Amino acid sequence: MSNSFGRLLRVTTFGESHGPAIGCVIDGCPPGIAIAPEDFERDLGRRASGRTRHTSQRHEDDRVEILGGVFEGRTTGTPVALLVRNTDARSKDYARIAEQFRPGHADYTYWHKYGHRDPRGGGRSSARETTMRVAAAVIARKWLAEHHGVTVRGHLSQIGEVVPDGHDWDAVEGNPFFWPHAAQVPALESYMDALRKSGDSVGARVTVVADGVPPGWGEPVYGKLDAELAAAMMSINAVKGVEIGAGFASVAQKGSEHRDAMSRQGFASNHAGGILGGISSGQQVVVSVAFKPTSSLRLPVMGLDVDGNEVEIVTTGRHDPCVGIRATPICEAMLALVLMDQALRHRAQCGDVGEVSPRVPGESKHSP
Amino acid sequence: MSNSFGRLLRVTTFGESHGPAIGCVIDGCPPGIAIAPEDFERDLGRRASGRTRHTSQRHEDDRVEILGGVFEGRTTGTPVALLVRNTDARSKDYARIAEQFRPGHADYTYWHKYGHRDPRGGGRSSARETTMRVAAAVIARKWLAEHHGVTVRGHLSQIGEVVPDGHDWDAVEGNPFFWPHAAQVPALESYMDALRKSGDSVGARVTVVADGVPPGWGEPVYGKLDAELAAAMMSINAVKGVEIGAGFASVAQKGSEHRDAMSRQGFASNHAGGILGGISSGQQVVVSVAFKPTSSLRLPVMGLDVDGNEVEIVTTGRHDPCVGIRATPICEAMLALVLMDQALRHRAQCGDVGEVSPRVPGESKHSP
Amino acid sequence: MSNSFGRLLRVTTFGESHGPAIGCVIDGCPPGIAIAPEDFERDLGRRASGRTRHTSQRHEDDRVEILGGVFEGRTTGTPVALLVRNTDARSKDYARIAEQFRPGHADYTYWHKYGHRDPRGGGRSSARETTMRVAAAVIARKWLAEHHGVTVRGHLSQIGEVVPDGHDWDAVEGNPFFWPHAAQVPALESYMDALRKSGDSVGARVTVVADGVPPGWGEPVYGKLDAELAAAMMSINAVKGVEIGAGFASVAQKGSEHRDAMSRQGFASNHAGGILGGISSGQQVVVSVAFKPTSSLRLPVMGLDVDGNEVEIVTTGRHDPCVGIRATPICEAMLALVLMDQALRHRAQCGDVGEVSPRVPGESKHSP
Amino acid sequence: MSNSFGRLLRVTTFGESHGPAIGCVIDGCPPGIAIAPEDFERDLGRRASGRTRHTSQRHEDDRVEILGGVFEGRTTGTPVALLVRNTDARSKDYARIAEQFRPGHADYTYWHKYGHRDPRGGGRSSARETTMRVAAAVIARKWLAEHHGVTVRGHLSQIGEVVPDGHDWDAVEGNPFFWPHAAQVPALESYMDALRKSGDSVGARVTVVADGVPPGWGEPVYGKLDAELAAAMMSINAVKGVEIGAGFASVAQKGSEHRDAMSRQGFASNHAGGILGGISSGQQVVVSVAFKPTSSLRLPVMGLDVDGNEVEIVTTGRHDPCVGIRATPICEAMLALVLMDQALRHRAQCGDVGEVSPRVPGESKHSP
Repeated sequence: MSNSFGRLLRVTTFGESHGPAIGCVIDGCPPGIAIAPEDFERDLGRRASGRTRHTSQRHEDDRVEILGGVFEGRTTGTPVALLVRNTDARSKDYARIAEQFRPGHADYTYWHKYGHRDPRGGGRSSARETTMRVAAAVIARKWLAEHHGVTVRGHLSQIGEVVPDGHDWDAVEGNPFFWPHAAQVPALESYMDALRKSGDSVGARVTVVADGVPPGWGEPVYGKLDAELAAAMMSINAVKGVEIGAGFASVAQKGSEHRDAMSRQGFASNHAGGILGGISSGQQVVVSVAFKPTSSLRLPVMGLDVDGNEVEIVTTGRHDPCVGIRATPICEAMLALVLMDQALRHRAQCGDVGEVSPRVPGESKHSP
Repeated sequence: MSNSFGRLLRVTTFGESHGPAIGCVIDGCPPGIAIAPEDFERDLGRRASGRTRHTSQRHEDDRVEILGGVFEGRTTGTPVALLVRNTDARSKDYARIAEQFRPGHADYTYWHKYGHRDPRGGGRSSARETTMRVAAAVIARKWLAEHHGVTVRGHLSQIGEVVPDGHDWDAVEGNPFFWPHAAQVPALESYMDALRKSGDSVGARVTVVADGVPPGWGEPVYGKLDAELAAAMMSINAVKGVEIGAGFASVAQKGSEHRDAMSRQGFASNHAGGILGGISSGQQVVVSVAFKPTSSLRLPVMGLDVDGNEVEIVTTGRHDPCVGIRATPICEAMLALVLMDQALRHRAQCGDVGEVSPRVPGESKHSP
Repeated sequence: MSNSFGRLLRVTTFGESHGPAIGCVIDGCPPGIAIAPEDFERDLGRRASGRTRHTSQRHEDDRVEILGGVFEGRTTGTPVALLVRNTDARSKDYARIAEQFRPGHADYTYWHKYGHRDPRGGGRSSARETTMRVAAAVIARKWLAEHHGVTVRGHLSQIGEVVPDGHDWDAVEGNPFFWPHAAQVPALESYMDALRKSGDSVGARVTVVADGVPPGWGEPVYGKLDAELAAAMMSINAVKGVEIGAGFASVAQKGSEHRDAMSRQGFASNHAGGILGGISSGQQVVVSVAFKPTSSLRLPVMGLDVDGNEVEIVTTGRHDPCVGIRATPICEAMLALVLMDQALRHRAQCGDVGEVSPRVPGESKHSP
Repeated sequence: MSNSFGRLLRVTTFGESHGPAIGCVIDGCPPGIAIAPEDFERDLGRRASGRTRHTSQRHEDDRVEILGGVFEGRTTGTPVALLVRNTDARSKDYARIAEQFRPGHADYTYWHKYGHRDPRGGGRSSARETTMRVAAAVIARKWLAEHHGVTVRGHLSQIGEVVPDGHDWDAVEGNPFFWPHAAQVPALESYMDALRKSGDSVGARVTVVADGVPPGWGEPVYGKLDAELAAAMMSINAVKGVEIGAGFASVAQKGSEHRDAMSRQGFASNHAGGILGGISSGQQVVVSVAFKPTSSLRLPVMGLDVDGNEVEIVTTGRHDPCVGIRATPICEAMLALVLMDQALRHRAQCGDVGEVSPRVPGESKHSP
């Protein structure tokens, strides 16, 4: 079950980076959702590699074939199956990589776990798998918007030491970094060019938010909305940390500062990130995610081979100098999938609970 | 299923803060583990409230009754059921709290989700529930130690703005803060006394580590060891962030710095926190957790009542000025439970895979 | 997870026949259901042993303590925990039974699986566990009746070679056999007296039906309503077969006979047992269950001891000459639990699907 | 999750009868199993339609494409994905069938559940889906044989009123009915020809057995081996009943007859069907399954259309007069998948339990 995700809206992905195809099965999808192959284009395009000089130069079509679960343009309630053929998977020469463990990669751990691994392009551990997360989330985003008015969006909130000087949602889609401040983009371009030239890589931080989530989504104790968001984000390749709302900053906060006072006008702040006791409060749900710098560098590093010998490892080929750059649509996808799953679970258990009390206006003016 | 945790070693907890009892059922436990009521005393004592003046003055016996799954002192493979009666649950007067939503608490979200809630002491959303996590983990720790030589421990790594000036594991259990540097303890005592006097609270950061984890535990993609650790930690009350290894610091790192070079002597560093591609590498598994400051303060704050009226809320009663102080054993418990669950899953799928390659020595000299 | 049952309404049971207590945790229960300790009395009484001379003479109070999940008499949405203390568990002398494997019992298989077992009264493999199924189903029955007008009932449909000569629901609760034909009861009493005197036992067949199930409950392929009913019934102690509707009789039927023609007046017959393609059709759901004769007899049989020696085994003590007699409430319980779980799942996925077509009247005049 | 099956070896199937393809994802598969596209040919051929004049004349290639999880001919531990394109799906004219509900089919129930359905060839409710069960089980059978010496086989044990006059495993694969008595085959051919000519259909009973299962597989209470077999079999299209061992015949048995005495030479009989207390005993595991007669007949029947009008329904096209004929490989597949899943679960929990006692020889001479 380690390749499945979600409890009621359950996504199972399959396929390797350099195998014939990748795909997914989306089980538990409500019937009647309009879906067509072209619906996947926008988000797969935003995630795709090869879009700019700042990302890997692998060029994949990412054309989605719908294999089941859709009839006459609408979901039927049976599993939606999606397939994407790999077309630019060059793996002529993987003999050496098959014998060596690259530091910072899954090579060594897969080998010790399974005793047999597909070394071509990282096999199953490649970020190529995230294509199917984004594809599955296209359906979730559609359902969330149509049935609940919930929207999901995100932006880069740090690259290396650089943080945004301002916040403008309109800027985000206008630059290859999903950066929320247009004036900084030229400087970022130079920064990335220099980095690429140096042969090194850098980490990044992504922030994703959901607007319009009603109070009541999420489940106590072990099915908490924040717990499942943490798992969802941490399951993305290269992620090393997850925060909800104020996150680690809350360690240095006082309680009188952190708790978000409530009035008839709404919440006075959103340090909670829209989640209290594991359940959505009606405020913006805010999640931040730390991506490590990729370890695939042409700068040499000491590693080992399968026989335990020390070897100097140099990674050539097509790699992102900052994997976080393309991660925004992936984090959005995971947020959307978790929310839809929780929405269905909430309807299952609490479908009889009506409006019990006036709601605090959740729309906060607070940017994440 | 939101009150169950783990896939093969499955812990289900139940009970409310001021109900008659709390308890848990541990399903999937291997047979033959020696277990007695007194085995729970040490860790429940470490977690217990009322231990020092710095924590809540609720005094619970936390005496564990074994209701099933153990015969002649050893587990039988059938579910281990544990019960702890609540003895110091004072809830004479909850009429007012039943009508009001405390900011920063689950009151408002439970109410909108369920339309009916147990307001006494936070009901199910109280940290009292974590007693059973610690109890269940006593069995996991025993099994991990006996069958794999794996040990789990932890310490506080930040309170408010204060960080340790040094690191000494031997100091941790000798002070009420699980603080790893004895010389700082008097200053911390003063800090906490002043905080308590002020009526305010503060956040904390806990770091837990597992030693001796072999390479190969964990599962790719959605069952990743780090993803499940993130969910486990985020499911603890008051947690707002989780990091593996370098965590958010990796955002500002270069790839040449972050990746942990490998040699025959071992890994040169442990920025990965012992996990690569979702699978343990044989290094120390290192997890850090951010706890927010408690919102239950005697300092007044604006809140709402169930009719939507604004009310000034003052929380009296027994509360921790820093909930993170008692959180170390809870984080350790979640780490142990996740590890044992993954160990069983690994044995299920890969029980036929023998030693395939020389292992890099995992024992790093690096403190977390 | 082998001690949990259901996907959204999830029941976990624990405890052994001669341990201190048995209990259950019901997770996923909708909030707002009125529940009190006395609500469990009727069904636990129907299931209880010691009620007549035809069943085991163990006398248990079966007094239910609610440990959590209920506040001011109504469920809160958090896990409902129920506890029943064992009060009549005599197990002074189990030394011999601990060393021997009784044919037809779980002794041998538990021993080879776990290497350590609780031999007192069958331990976890005792039908005592079914007490908690019946208890949990009290809540399910209440919810099904109140929210959907669904009722569940059952009767014995065969003992040994004896089948009912007529069918009258009103007769069922008026005799200790749940037999649907009052005139046969005296003969059955004599039959059972003779059987008990002979020291032997006999099998039985139970039929349970649900009225009022709307079309649409159940899920295709692997979550079929009939598949889950089959598992639920087969999980009851001593069950060797399960049928839906015509069951094994359909093997000898022609298609023109088996298929249930539909008209505006309803279905012409109910060979399907109310389920088509794994989904309820709106007809009565009809399930029949085969119980084997108990193997615990005072008539000697050849068995083995733990060292592999042949031993003659004679079982004295309190045993039912026909375990199926008390099974009707247990089968009803499993039917109710499966239906409620499927109802919640249906609401989760298809809560947006309204009335799409006129419904065929489901009320068939056909007795099961 | 209703399209997934198994707990640790988890099979998810997708696709519709007349959609572009059907497929499956097998998660949790141990690494190192040798697998090639041609390994699927034998069992898919045994299941295939169009093999004889007694089965549907749809001719599918059933060529399996491996999309992931296999590298250099061996499984890697990542999900094995299999795809079969539909090539003989004629659905030019489904307008009428889209508007009508065929009695005895899932048309009516899918419509009321989902409000939108794929009517072409039954869509997802078609037995075409079982192709992927058989494909997935090819891997399970291989693993069971290689790692545990467990083999799975089956035969038809009744067609209509006809039962075998003798039992010879060698006869089974030599005739199109999987019939265990060669001398009866000509008569069966005539019987089926007459049935086909009459336009009617008939039910069947299939018996499958597993040899070599060690004692200890299965889990108590809700994860019982027999409970999971019951669900697995009942999830197959057209199944109405499941029996373990003596099944419904045990209702009329005495306890002294049913219980299988044990000696050093083995069990005296196998009424239990190889399962005691939900756990394998080391005897042959024996399961019988009732298949109803297909409802798709050219003989007219009264049905309804989507507007609630009564319509006379005549089904032309390609249909099996006895769907049970092709069901033997499907039942075998489900038996193999359940066994492998339980074997992995047993290893997970009880991998430390060694040989605790002498085993009774399990090889019984009893034919099912």
